[in-house]
Amino acid sequence: MTARIEGIGASAGIAIARAFILENPSLDVSVKKIDDADAEISRFNEAVDKAKVELEAIKEKANEQLGEDKAAIFAAHLLVLSDPELLDNVKGKIKDDQLNAESAMSEVSNMFISMFESMDNEYMKERAADIRDVSKRVLAHLLGVQFTTPASITEKVVIIAEDLTPSDTAQLNREYVQGFATDIGGRTSHSAIMARSMEIPAVVGTKDVTKQVENGQLVIVDGIEGKVIVDPDEEVMNEYKTKQENYEKQKKEWAKLVNEPTVTSDEQHIELAANIGTPEDVKGVLENGAEGIGLYRTEFLYMGRTELPSEEEQFKAYRTVLEKMEEKPVVIRTLDIGGDKELPYLDLPKELNPFLGFRAIRLCLDKTDIFKTQLRALLRASVYGNLKVMFPMIATLDEFRQAKQFLLEVKEELKSEGNEVSDEIEVGMMVEIPSTAVMADQFAKEVDFFSIGTNDLIQYTMAADRMNEKVSYLYQPYNPAILRLVKMVIDAAHKENKWAGMCGEMAGDATAIPILLGLGLDEFSMSATSVLPARSQLSKLSKEDAASRAKEILELSTNTEVVEYVNKHFNA
Amino acid sequence: MTARIEGIGASAGIAIARAFILENPSLDVSVKKIDDADAEISRFNEAVDKAKVELEAIKEKANEQLGEDKAAIFAAHLLVLSDPELLDNVKGKIKDDQLNAESAMSEVSNMFISMFESMDNEYMKERAADIRDVSKRVLAHLLGVQFTTPASITEKVVIIAEDLTPSDTAQLNREYVQGFATDIGGRTSHSAIMARSMEIPAVVGTKDVTKQVENGQLVIVDGIEGKVIVDPDEEVMNEYKTKQENYEKQKKEWAKLVNEPTVTSDEQHIELAANIGTPEDVKGVLENGAEGIGLYRTEFLYMGRTELPSEEEQFKAYRTVLEKMEEKPVVIRTLDIGGDKELPYLDLPKELNPFLGFRAIRLCLDKTDIFKTQLRALLRASVYGNLKVMFPMIATLDEFRQAKQFLLEVKEELKSEGNEVSDEIEVGMMVEIPSTAVMADQFAKEVDFFSIGTNDLIQYTMAADRMNEKVSYLYQPYNPAILRLVKMVIDAAHKENKWAGMCGEMAGDATAIPILLGLGLDEFSMSATSVLPARSQLSKLSKEDAASRAKEILELSTNTEVVEYVNKHFNA
Repeated sequence: MTARIEGIGASAGIAIARAFILENPSLDVSVKKIDDADAEISRFNEAVDKAKVELEAIKEKANEQLGEDKAAIFAAHLLVLSDPELLDNVKGKIKDDQLNAESAMSEVSNMFISMFESMDNEYMKERAADIRDVSKRVLAHLLGVQFTTPASITEKVVIIAEDLTPSDTAQLNREYVQGFATDIGGRTSHSAIMARSMEIPAVVGTKDVTKQVENGQLVIVDGIEGKVIVDPDEEVMNEYKTKQENYEKQKKEWAKLVNEPTVTSDEQHIELAANIGTPEDVKGVLENGAEGIGLYRTEFLYMGRTELPSEEEQFKAYRTVLEKMEEKPVVIRTLDIGGDKELPYLDLPKELNPFLGFRAIRLCLDKTDIFKTQLRALLRASVYGNLKVMFPMIATLDEFRQAKQFLLEVKEELKSEGNEVSDEIEVGMMVEIPSTAVMADQFAKEVDFFSIGTNDLIQYTMAADRMNEKVSYLYQPYNPAILRLVKMVIDAAHKENKWAGMCGEMAGDATAIPILLGLGLDEFSMSATSVLPARSQLSKLSKEDAASRAKEILELSTNTEVVEYVNKHFNA
Repeated sequence: MTARIEGIGASAGIAIARAFILENPSLDVSVKKIDDADAEISRFNEAVDKAKVELEAIKEKANEQLGEDKAAIFAAHLLVLSDPELLDNVKGKIKDDQLNAESAMSEVSNMFISMFESMDNEYMKERAADIRDVSKRVLAHLLGVQFTTPASITEKVVIIAEDLTPSDTAQLNREYVQGFATDIGGRTSHSAIMARSMEIPAVVGTKDVTKQVENGQLVIVDGIEGKVIVDPDEEVMNEYKTKQENYEKQKKEWAKLVNEPTVTSDEQHIELAANIGTPEDVKGVLENGAEGIGLYRTEFLYMGRTELPSEEEQFKAYRTVLEKMEEKPVVIRTLDIGGDKELPYLDLPKELNPFLGFRAIRLCLDKTDIFKTQLRALLRASVYGNLKVMFPMIATLDEFRQAKQFLLEVKEELKSEGNEVSDEIEVGMMVEIPSTAVMADQFAKEVDFFSIGTNDLIQYTMAADRMNEKVSYLYQPYNPAILRLVKMVIDAAHKENKWAGMCGEMAGDATAIPILLGLGLDEFSMSATSVLPARSQLSKLSKEDAASRAKEILELSTNTEVVEYVNKHFNA
């Protein structure tokens, strides 16, 4: 009988295939006394070697398909397997206590895991997770248990799992894996982000899809509506085949727009840009026909490592992106760390309200060495393309002035050292704190551009943590309060002949796009895969019409009223 | 030699007297085997009885001088001393292990303390603190060590201490204690609040005043500027005697205004109200000549207890306040719990960013039983005075409408039960979330009044946790962004013939008052002790002049510029 399971649409598209249930194998270890310690130690060494070979292969595949940064986790796993402290401890237990390798490995790794977990430090806690993963892999070899890894899949399937780990997603073969559905996760969880960048339809957060689906059952994953249909009857099957065809057709329509400019029905040009996290993401930006990069989040350069990235390392990353984008605009945001993004090696104090805490520009204006190193790298890279520098989390004019002053000082410094630096660099700021929207007229006199960061702007304007489910009903992108602040920013920019963009999730949202067009937004920056649908949508909208609608929208009183208005007047 | 120590002015005024250093006695317990267990047990019983007598006396004094709510902590201490589980455990140890009473008491109380402290629950942690206090008191009697309690002071002194505990402040005799200075604490710490309500000059947060001052040294506590002067020479002494006289003179000037209305130099009436936390605070409100209560924080009714207050209990509190205030307006705010204010017995989930979390009206609209009970109590009390009901932390019109709907439902319910309810109750809301300031024109159509809560409004508008020292530089009350939001609220209210007040700390601040007057604020609500200075200040200001200044102020760009402007144009 057809069953429907509700979840969260994490990556658009329709997948239809048999279910492949990805399970964690059970690794029950029994404690045994052994006679021949040497033989047991070589059995252990063998298992470690097999695990290493396996990890090397996964790492290589990840490197090819996902880029160096995403492969780094497997390098970390390999390091664990070369750690003499861990290995010698296991061998010692085998020899001294005459323990079998399984229980020795299990005991030692548990000791390390609980040691690392007890440390009040995210970096160390991640190390605990690494050891747990690696220890499982070694134990599986010792016990002769097969991991069901996605790499072993050789027919078209839909993966059903509790969650997908980084090592799972790294092994997904797009030729066979049509889509996936998981019990846990949200739109911004690791597996959801991976699904979007690989363009695999996915539904996450179903709570119990693993309990409702059996291996080999026919399954439909509807990543557009966030549904999983199990054992569809013929009627449902036909319905979804049509839906799938329509979606593919639409994708082909979108694909035709790759090399087209973004023009509204009344011939107004709009700039559509993409957000990226690493130089590897530029490929997707170009494939999807974005006209620039509206947000390069430099945090990833600083994360998943044990020390700050050097100036040279940063320079190379920035230069790569600028060169690959040729003369297209690239907005690079300076370090936005703190809040939910921690850098373990900076050892920042725990905060009661990290989202209202010491982060981004606040941290950079305090730890000026870190800031200056990044600014040097940015300015040195500036001659390789069309660089625009953007400061995050500006709250006051004082902060913007200070940040800009640092940039000017570093520029002088570089020039006096004989380095070339572009003189055409625009310097702008994120508008993500309510005070800056309210004061946008004053800021507009001193910045070259604004980029509105809606995720944070909504969170602060509504005083509601966007990660907190109890208040998620207050995360209202279409609340007229947000739209009025957006308007203040755009109007202030235009009055001073500056441009205003948006790089939050809202910029790529089909409901928001007509409103933002009407408010006069100049640049929309979104995930690369949203660019073509947005271009298609904008080509059917008249800017003049949207502008008069926007005036009416600003006088509505609730989020719901705005959504109803948009549905009525734009999506008819 | 004269030494000057910088701190935080916690309570205005100048105190000049000899230092009295309040130290925690050392209570070293040595473990001894005893022969006569029965004798040791009666020695223990005796110490417990002495501690009880002592605590009864402190409790009574606290009750008289500070009110029932502040005396409750000593009732809790007395409960600990009657707890058979604790007492029997100690006696058991004396008997079975032949231990001396000191070490038995110390061992048992430490066991209880660590048990309570390990619980992830604020209420239980407070119990641990109670046991620690009580255990010290009993040990002091067993060891024959004298506590240096403030109660033992019989000459005019300035108290110097690391910090003052609730039991210390409860025992302060205002006749002898001229002022105090502490190492730790801030303007909102317990000891600072107590100092202001007792009108004792105080400086807190000096870091090391206990190390820099010796018992009996002559000390000046300057609570106006936040300074402690040790061993002043004649010149300094004269300077401060003059300062003290001037301050006393000023206080006398202020006192003359108690029964006067608040009128500006151009004959405009302004309403000056006070903020309270308990019915006992009404005394101070009337003594200081406030024209009403602009904020009655009902949280205190819910705190420091193990279950929700009943409707009857709340009704009595509200009725008492309304009756004591006669027909003067009393704005009662519904429960604002969550964030930094926890109710252990509600067992709310821990949040990553409590200031952006599930609190105040968000909680009340979810836990409707709690909300309805409070609304019933409020409406029943409404016939005893001039009640205005105010909802905290409103972010959207939907929330305000829901909250008001509950009020109307409860009103019908009460009427159908035959209760009398006033039909004149104004229903308003706090403006403390940026979205409501931006949408004030829409809210103004549906509310009877606004009261701006600046503490939170500043925190959210600047995205800076006001408790976090690393970002405290962003807590900028005079930032034009804040002032513009305040203006939006006032203008929106006036357009609909509603009134706009302010109940945050800013309303009583001498720098803010001329600006707020100029922006057209109708009601200023502040701590009772600020009312007379504010009345005096307002009587010297022209509203018309302030209004034209305010226009200029709104075009300034930073907090510093605003402060400079006010100093130049108003305090000249």
